[in-house]
Amino acid sequence: MNLQSYQRLVAQFCKLPGIGTKTAQRLAYHILKMPEAEVKQFAATMYDARRKVRYCKICGNLCEEEVCSVCGDPKRDRSVICVVKDSRDVFAIEKTHEYRGLYHVLGGTISPLEGVGPDDIAIDSLLERMDGEVKEVILATNPDVQGEATAAYISRLLGGYDVKVSRIAHGIPIGAELEYADEITLAKALEGRTSL
Amino acid sequence: MNLQSYQRLVAQFCKLPGIGTKTAQRLAYHILKMPEAEVKQFAATMYDARRKVRYCKICGNLCEEEVCSVCGDPKRDRSVICVVKDSRDVFAIEKTHEYRGLYHVLGGTISPLEGVGPDDIAIDSLLERMDGEVKEVILATNPDVQGEATAAYISRLLGGYDVKVSRIAHGIPIGAELEYADEITLAKALEGRTSL
Repeated sequence: MNLQSYQRLVAQFCKLPGIGTKTAQRLAYHILKMPEAEVKQFAATMYDARRKVRYCKICGNLCEEEVCSVCGDPKRDRSVICVVKDSRDVFAIEKTHEYRGLYHVLGGTISPLEGVGPDDIAIDSLLERMDGEVKEVILATNPDVQGEATAAYISRLLGGYDVKVSRIAHGIPIGAELEYADEITLAKALEGRTSL
Repeated sequence: MNLQSYQRLVAQFCKLPGIGTKTAQRLAYHILKMPEAEVKQFAATMYDARRKVRYCKICGNLCEEEVCSVCGDPKRDRSVICVVKDSRDVFAIEKTHEYRGLYHVLGGTISPLEGVGPDDIAIDSLLERMDGEVKEVILATNPDVQGEATAAYISRLLGGYDVKVSRIAHGIPIGAELEYADEITLAKALEGRTSL
């Protein structure tokens, strides 16, 4: 079988995260069966999205303008900054519609094993934002080794500023069952208990 | 969060088979993080593949020319035609490098429940290929209800031609264990036993 354009498309899909050869073949085959106009639209959307997107010059979040829609919103609470690993975390928190403050996207977490040091993520630009207006920094990095280390590191640096530093709560997720929770989560849930 | 081009890209990925919202978000986010030149290449490959591909006018297989690379190959055995449901089956059989005959791609199987009748798949064009040169037709539709019905239907039609009709063997897949095989497969494997 000599269908080069199909093989090339399979190779492209294989580059995406979590897409193996079989899935790539299934997707590529589907593309070949789609109406030509729809494929044109898909390809244009893809390139268009990549071309338009850039990083907010204030918080580092993905955006289409100079400044992202959160930083540019006058109704957001400018006294709170939530520090996250990447833009996907911003998407996730925004979906809760509970948080009204600003964000700071680190673009990674400190991970000596992977060669990522404090200077490789956006910590300096976070410190530059400590202008007196900011009253609280919420460290919302993931509860894994790198996330905890990054939170601890930033927390220490922020000790030199007049700002409250907090960490998101760890505990039992809503809907989960106690008996299936791992020991560390359970210990954190007990430790972080709130009075009723 | 107001990142429209990202949302549009997520919507496009969601249209692909087996891609849910979470996966679509992961893929779209990955695209945004890829170098712009690579995304341009991906988009171009996708549209290019769709634009170039068409159906072989002899066998109905996907190809980039008038006639697919199998039908156009003078070294293939023109006395055998293997009938399959779609082009993916051709890709799969070609990968074995065992089959040297031609193909016929039906483009579906008879399925009254889904409103697919014998006239909706490429059966007429298969009969037109019975020109005396063809000595054997191998029915290689899937071993499911629609595949079996389609094979039986085509087999009956081919009764009017001087051609041998065969069906691919059903049995225990290589590497599988007998105790885990279902009853029907096991019965088929016994029924189709070969003498050593």
